[in-house]
Amino acid sequence: LFQLELEADALVLFQQYCSQLPPFYESSSHVLHTEVLQHLTDLIRNHPSWSVAHLAVELGIRECFHHSRVISCANSTENEEGCTPLHLACRKGDGEILVELVQYCHAQMDVTDNKGETAFHYAVQGDNSQVLQEIMGKNASAGLNQVNNQGLTPLHLACQLGKPEMVRVLLLCNARCNIMGPSGYPIHSAMKFSQKGCAEMIVSMDSSQIHSKDPRYGASPLHWAKNAEMARMLLKRGCDVNSTSSAGNTALHVAVMRNRFDCVMVLLTHGANADARGENGNTPLHLAMSKDNMEMIKALIVFGAEVDTPNDFGETPTFLASKIHKQLQDLLHISRARKPAFILNSMRDEKRTHDHLLCLDGGGVKGLVIIQLLIAIEKASGVPIKDLFDWVAGTSTGGILALAILHSKSMAYMRGVYFRMKDEVFRGSRPYESGPLEEFLKREFGEHTKMTDVRKPKVMLTGTLSDRQPAELHLFRNYDAPESIREPRFSQNVNLRPPTLPSDQLVWRAARSSGAAPTYFRPNGRFLDGGLLANNPTLDAMTEIHEYNQDLIRKGQGDKVKKLSIVVSLGTGRSPQVPVTCVDVFRPSNPWELAKTVFGAKELGKMVVDCCTDPDGRAVDRARAWCEMVSIQYFRLNPQLGTDIMLDEVSDTVLVNALWETEVYIYEHREEFQKLIQLLLSP
Amino acid sequence: LFQLELEADALVLFQQYCSQLPPFYESSSHVLHTEVLQHLTDLIRNHPSWSVAHLAVELGIRECFHHSRVISCANSTENEEGCTPLHLACRKGDGEILVELVQYCHAQMDVTDNKGETAFHYAVQGDNSQVLQEIMGKNASAGLNQVNNQGLTPLHLACQLGKPEMVRVLLLCNARCNIMGPSGYPIHSAMKFSQKGCAEMIVSMDSSQIHSKDPRYGASPLHWAKNAEMARMLLKRGCDVNSTSSAGNTALHVAVMRNRFDCVMVLLTHGANADARGENGNTPLHLAMSKDNMEMIKALIVFGAEVDTPNDFGETPTFLASKIHKQLQDLLHISRARKPAFILNSMRDEKRTHDHLLCLDGGGVKGLVIIQLLIAIEKASGVPIKDLFDWVAGTSTGGILALAILHSKSMAYMRGVYFRMKDEVFRGSRPYESGPLEEFLKREFGEHTKMTDVRKPKVMLTGTLSDRQPAELHLFRNYDAPESIREPRFSQNVNLRPPTLPSDQLVWRAARSSGAAPTYFRPNGRFLDGGLLANNPTLDAMTEIHEYNQDLIRKGQGDKVKKLSIVVSLGTGRSPQVPVTCVDVFRPSNPWELAKTVFGAKELGKMVVDCCTDPDGRAVDRARAWCEMVSIQYFRLNPQLGTDIMLDEVSDTVLVNALWETEVYIYEHREEFQKLIQLLLSP
Repeated sequence: LFQLELEADALVLFQQYCSQLPPFYESSSHVLHTEVLQHLTDLIRNHPSWSVAHLAVELGIRECFHHSRVISCANSTENEEGCTPLHLACRKGDGEILVELVQYCHAQMDVTDNKGETAFHYAVQGDNSQVLQEIMGKNASAGLNQVNNQGLTPLHLACQLGKPEMVRVLLLCNARCNIMGPSGYPIHSAMKFSQKGCAEMIVSMDSSQIHSKDPRYGASPLHWAKNAEMARMLLKRGCDVNSTSSAGNTALHVAVMRNRFDCVMVLLTHGANADARGENGNTPLHLAMSKDNMEMIKALIVFGAEVDTPNDFGETPTFLASKIHKQLQDLLHISRARKPAFILNSMRDEKRTHDHLLCLDGGGVKGLVIIQLLIAIEKASGVPIKDLFDWVAGTSTGGILALAILHSKSMAYMRGVYFRMKDEVFRGSRPYESGPLEEFLKREFGEHTKMTDVRKPKVMLTGTLSDRQPAELHLFRNYDAPESIREPRFSQNVNLRPPTLPSDQLVWRAARSSGAAPTYFRPNGRFLDGGLLANNPTLDAMTEIHEYNQDLIRKGQGDKVKKLSIVVSLGTGRSPQVPVTCVDVFRPSNPWELAKTVFGAKELGKMVVDCCTDPDGRAVDRARAWCEMVSIQYFRLNPQLGTDIMLDEVSDTVLVNALWETEVYIYEHREEFQKLIQLLLSP
Repeated sequence: LFQLELEADALVLFQQYCSQLPPFYESSSHVLHTEVLQHLTDLIRNHPSWSVAHLAVELGIRECFHHSRVISCANSTENEEGCTPLHLACRKGDGEILVELVQYCHAQMDVTDNKGETAFHYAVQGDNSQVLQEIMGKNASAGLNQVNNQGLTPLHLACQLGKPEMVRVLLLCNARCNIMGPSGYPIHSAMKFSQKGCAEMIVSMDSSQIHSKDPRYGASPLHWAKNAEMARMLLKRGCDVNSTSSAGNTALHVAVMRNRFDCVMVLLTHGANADARGENGNTPLHLAMSKDNMEMIKALIVFGAEVDTPNDFGETPTFLASKIHKQLQDLLHISRARKPAFILNSMRDEKRTHDHLLCLDGGGVKGLVIIQLLIAIEKASGVPIKDLFDWVAGTSTGGILALAILHSKSMAYMRGVYFRMKDEVFRGSRPYESGPLEEFLKREFGEHTKMTDVRKPKVMLTGTLSDRQPAELHLFRNYDAPESIREPRFSQNVNLRPPTLPSDQLVWRAARSSGAAPTYFRPNGRFLDGGLLANNPTLDAMTEIHEYNQDLIRKGQGDKVKKLSIVVSLGTGRSPQVPVTCVDVFRPSNPWELAKTVFGAKELGKMVVDCCTDPDGRAVDRARAWCEMVSIQYFRLNPQLGTDIMLDEVSDTVLVNALWETEVYIYEHREEFQKLIQLLLSP
């Protein structure tokens, strides 16, 4: 069966074999197979301290357990690990052997090994969760909640090892969740070792665990989250994002201290208070300053952290920044400027004599830039956007935000929603599945909500009716469309369905139709993205309002007409202007030129689409001239971005930077911005 | 050498051979080759009446002409055609034989054959024009201008047969052009047989021939033109398009009578008077009525033919139409409506207190629709467009027309130019060579003319600066651009050249840059067609004027500011609206779907471009609302067309029909139209 190099070794082994082998061939009616013998001799060599009962467990031959020598050492712990044969059977997960040991050999259930581990600890380390139940069946619950020498219960151990099924069975066996281990309760172990399945299992079996604070730090599981996925899981299941530890720190404090940018973003986008005061009165921004992590500092400021909040030592984040990093100081000027120089608490004047129009461009996830601008306006004015404007027009992402305003969703909330949704919606490759987008819209606006369910302010979303050539603009309104007295552009075509009435129009569908950016998403029925015709909806909104007023006058309701006095047009950020090689399409005379033609055609296509959907060039010049000619105050706010950001950008870093650039922009245009606020608040 | 079926034939032939063969073998020092003998015997069989001299000419053996029997019949005419050997030598074009005949055989030069034809007639029928000169060299000009029994001189014959080289040599030999033949002079023969090369040769050798009237009808060569190509050739060489025949008819009368639509179009587009009174006082329209050719009737009316001009019998075209064709009457209502109901002869009021703006859309050859609208405005107002407007804005084809207005070109002239140019410019396949377009622009506007050379009215052409991303609108102006006080959209990029100043800008280049429709023409340097950003330039023109006025005010010249009171926006015709299948781009799961995707992408591309460049949808709604809000009278004229007409349409029929639809449109909107005229003329 084997060979050895030294005679001395052989002699020692021979002695072992002599003492250990008999029970096995004596208890078997057959001659043992070569393989079994080989296994057995290997075990004897590798575990010289094991009793025959230990060997029998590992070998897995039931018959042996009726042999007196085996029975005699059924509770033997005289080996290196100090474990019983039962321990081994549990680790091996062999239920039948377990039965033999307990029934025939009277094995004791509550023996602990040298490390203080019970059979449960061993079972958890194995692969068979059934065994756990079988031990329980033997009324052996004594060891279920016992801690080993490291202070771990079997449940702790299962969490640490990432065995959700073991966790499930342990909990079914009523294992306790509130036994203190070295890293707190089992849930905290699961978090510490980023064992998502185990943490989920604990929370789903005992929902109170999500709020469970570890006795040492008083930290919630969220405090223990080491990465975005773990944090997101807890937040999805309803944990309190702002819960504090004994020292007063929130999960955000911890994430910042640990320099976990992805966690920071998840926490911020789920509503973590960027300005929470923790240990020593430090805000997360205080802590971030010491990390010299610009991304994190930007993210915190963008999400509302104040630079002038003093901690218990009277130090502001600005002060800390100045100690550390010269370059940081510039940033802080900017965020400090967000504070309004004057405090206003006047509310919307219901008797306003003139109307205000808010126009929101399209631009996919870059809608975050609009959100940031709106938050600044709300903050500076002290009045919700909803009450500052009488008309809100939006295209695509701007349309979704117009509806959010209409339905009284806070822009800070929408910022979180956008950051969270992008990962769900822009998954895979273009065109993206529209399911997640539609689910999101239904969740936010309700599956059955109609456009006319909320009527103030008046909202219009642009859409492109593409079931006809040329395509036509369609406005989704929450009010009745003005009747036109002009002849229709084309004679009525019976094949074309008339558009849905506002009172029948589902809100989520309107949002989806306005935001069906071609090649990003499939069209929604006959609608393509409103951006094709009006990526900047200002001109069309002004046209609509004029026609609405004309219609009122025609109907003898001229007294209801209010003139526009302010138009605020918000963009989703300007890409940098770049020189391009000449866009040309010519007749190719050789393959190389052919290749250039195809390239040219693609470039040309991009240029045409960009020209067509550019919300910032002539669209702005035209709107400004129009407004100036009729003495309407026109404000165009659109930050210059450092890079070209796609509609479907998913990088948190890139997006945080865009928001940062938005803050820089607001700072640089603070005079115009303040003028806007004053005008919006004047009666 | 040969076989015969009947002995009798063989005997006859043997007799002939006996008499004819000797001179040939006697004069040759060698034995004759089999091939030569075969040729000779064939000739003898096929031309039994020929003398040995005739045979010798055809055989082409010089030696024979020293044989006495050949010499003896050198002037023989005793054969079926009555021709001499010299005739045959001329037809054969064999100069050497000719020399032998004249020098050794004393052949006479002035013999005519049975048909009265001289050696010149024969030479013309051959292929060797050298021979003609050789005959002349023999001082035999007697027959040069002699007519044959059909009344044709050799020159007539050459023209009839289409032999320009013969024509050239005959004219070099001083053949006369004014000998009357059965169809007039030789030039008329060339026209009758549509021998373009011959007609061109005559005109190039004797330019007076282009005006030459045939003695019988007093008709110019143009009257004789049977197709467009022949007519175009004469017109290009400067013939008088309105020259009349003895009966008083113009070439247009003849073309209408002969139902030659293509000729009619060439004549009309070269300035033929559509209303000329010919024989019996009939206008071309009178004659067209009897042809029941709607196309032709439409073309004449579109080009200005009046329906109420009476002929010598007091019959108007309308009257003739009513006799013939019920359906025609409706047409006539329409054209009759073009006459203004009131006669206005007020001139442009230099002291006008308000400005008028004219805006012309892009649309390639469809610019003809704009031309037709402008002609109607000029006709109804009695004032040139140039004096009716203070600002003229144009895109692409509209830009070219804006420049035509600026440079005082009549719109009727431009209509002809457009009809003529399309065939030159849209030749081959897209993208078209830009050479012809550029040549045309240089010809019309001068190669060195600068934008500021003519300063009234103020003109702006839109162009798309495509050397940057996003592309920007550039206006080509004939005045200095207003200075903007706003911050530039992008920080100055040193790589981007600033645009050329108006005073340095070549007019033809501006027109070319505005009209560089992608895929139709290659871009002009860094400019793409203005239609990409402003296919309907109204909004941008209004923006420009506002900024211009603001600039004046800033410079303390507010007194120079004139407000706009009228905006006239002219379109190039609306295509019919058609339902389209859903435009979709989705991820393909099989080859069939892949094919659909590619198709969808193409459809989508078209839809995007159409949305982007649609000059008629929102562009009009926005402009109207803007104008109404500032109390500017806004007129949008854009005829609905029955079919979708491409930018590069070359069919005269299709284009005439578009112009006809324009006339129908003006009739249907006559009230609005008259209101426009009255407003334009009011001080």
